[in-house]
Amino acid sequence: MHNKCPNRNDSFKDAALARQAQLTKPSGSLGKLEALAVKLADLQQTEKPSVENIFIAVFAGDHGVAAEGVSAFPQEVTAQMVMNFLQGGAAISVMAKQLNSKLEIIDTGILTPLPKQTGLVIHRAGNGTANSAQEAAMTKEQLAIALQAGKEAIERATTKNTTQTNTDLFIGGEMGIANTTAAAALYCALLNLTPEQATGAGTGLDAQGIEHKVNVVKQILATHESCGDNALKWLRCVGGFEIAALTAAMIHAAQSGVPVLVDGFISSVAALCANRINPGVNDYLIFSHVSNEQGHRKVLSSLNQQALLDLDLRLGEGSGAAIAASLLKSACALHNNMATFEEAAVAGKNA
Amino acid sequence: MHNKCPNRNDSFKDAALARQAQLTKPSGSLGKLEALAVKLADLQQTEKPSVENIFIAVFAGDHGVAAEGVSAFPQEVTAQMVMNFLQGGAAISVMAKQLNSKLEIIDTGILTPLPKQTGLVIHRAGNGTANSAQEAAMTKEQLAIALQAGKEAIERATTKNTTQTNTDLFIGGEMGIANTTAAAALYCALLNLTPEQATGAGTGLDAQGIEHKVNVVKQILATHESCGDNALKWLRCVGGFEIAALTAAMIHAAQSGVPVLVDGFISSVAALCANRINPGVNDYLIFSHVSNEQGHRKVLSSLNQQALLDLDLRLGEGSGAAIAASLLKSACALHNNMATFEEAAVAGKNA
Repeated sequence: MHNKCPNRNDSFKDAALARQAQLTKPSGSLGKLEALAVKLADLQQTEKPSVENIFIAVFAGDHGVAAEGVSAFPQEVTAQMVMNFLQGGAAISVMAKQLNSKLEIIDTGILTPLPKQTGLVIHRAGNGTANSAQEAAMTKEQLAIALQAGKEAIERATTKNTTQTNTDLFIGGEMGIANTTAAAALYCALLNLTPEQATGAGTGLDAQGIEHKVNVVKQILATHESCGDNALKWLRCVGGFEIAALTAAMIHAAQSGVPVLVDGFISSVAALCANRINPGVNDYLIFSHVSNEQGHRKVLSSLNQQALLDLDLRLGEGSGAAIAASLLKSACALHNNMATFEEAAVAGKNA
Repeated sequence: MHNKCPNRNDSFKDAALARQAQLTKPSGSLGKLEALAVKLADLQQTEKPSVENIFIAVFAGDHGVAAEGVSAFPQEVTAQMVMNFLQGGAAISVMAKQLNSKLEIIDTGILTPLPKQTGLVIHRAGNGTANSAQEAAMTKEQLAIALQAGKEAIERATTKNTTQTNTDLFIGGEMGIANTTAAAALYCALLNLTPEQATGAGTGLDAQGIEHKVNVVKQILATHESCGDNALKWLRCVGGFEIAALTAAMIHAAQSGVPVLVDGFISSVAALCANRINPGVNDYLIFSHVSNEQGHRKVLSSLNQQALLDLDLRLGEGSGAAIAASLLKSACALHNNMATFEEAAVAGKNA
């Protein structure tokens, strides 16, 4: 995981910047889409950036800490939603179809295994994590399995075969009842937030529910304070399997030169962990949206990143990233296909 | 233009709200996309809202006030950009192709007529407007022609024929060197903004250029102060042809029951005029983005509307609306195609 991200030749970035200045529009008038096109050209090391072959991997895992009553939904929903992903009824399934993307669901350790079926990758680190309010969520062996699940997803995404070639964007999603609690604890541990700052309503807690969740986060932090500032230790002790897998997937995507479009609150904490483990990753990240879970703005500012959308999305599954992906497609289409002033015989700005 | 917008049956809105509550996601977790789907279901009076047949009309016209030196680009760029629209090299052309939309360019009065050609509708109110810093930009007859150009575009969009059926969204764009000056004057007149508040860099003025533009706006306002609070009079005296056409197009789209996705600074002032003339129009408007021209936020708040995107777009042509259109497509796809909790056999929220 500590391998370097690829060295990039600046010529593609420079050429993209030069091209943006020649396209038939006032300079800078396409705003953040201009910077996006330049970033994609730089990361993909190409003159014509592209977001046509998107690989979406949704990692699912259960959380022992659900026993503390921190979620508005019962724990069996994790597995039920995995079935919904596979059957095409979930938001991420609809968006994957809309984007004509490859969608993989990886069971990294939901409570009860599901039968083998098309679209489901079974890479389980356990029958859910242990309860992090009382003990480490994972053993070292379990963490290694979860990380490997993420790495292998990217290997599938970047190995040319009949199902997916030339992945030009990776979107990682997650599903796991109680995983906003795990993420909140990680935000506190890694960004020095208070549990009150980092803890939100998740899937729909009321004020009393949030207060209880804050107390559980405090207990988690107290239980594992010896992790200090070691992101990997925190990941193991707080979990879950799906967050660890997503962390590894982001690292390996970056190492493979594939840009990562980051989803919301949970995915961003995986991005934060990925950066702590391998700081070269940050260059490869594009943040799709600002979630209205507290603490999300802080992770963006800590990574010196801005999000594309602010639409009060808070679903997870990778859905916010999939919704934002069309902006990247537009940025590429405009960059690649607009005429230059010279080509169109349009006069430039007055001297 | 004063005809009523259609009476809508609330049952579609109610059904859409009920459906959103049953889809397999925490309630409200798709944020503004949920409200968008409900709004489109209400406006289109359907259970399954759709943004598949988008009609884009870009109105072009020249401005006499360009003689005051208010633009960073020379006036011949209006016609050159019209050619660029037609040849597929402009941002709006690229986006129309990306959206698989019908794109019409309407010459409402550029300085010198272009030859007849495919994709170009000739509906000219004059060889550019008069200089509004000295006299009324249009005669009453010219205003009528410009308004008619907008109305007829919508008639083409909503008449079933071989090229376009069932238009489910209208995007209006504009091109006209110096039209941010006309728009700034309209903002001042209709929203009581100061010229300093309403005047921005347009296509790229420097500080000195902006100061000069502010003075020109002051002169325009002084020349036509007798227009009082009559939006139609202001439209005639300040122009331009393309803004008037866009105003009429928005009114007639709303009267035809077609939602309007509004672009940036210029389009929003047309939306403002449309609402002043026919207040039923506002329901049909969806604002695509907040432009970084000053005054744009004020028009949104005055219409009690929020924009979808904030990406520093300031190109015009309808391009920002076309970029945002994919969000509407996603909102519809999610609304129509996600499974309900019952269909997916997913447990609901804890009681």
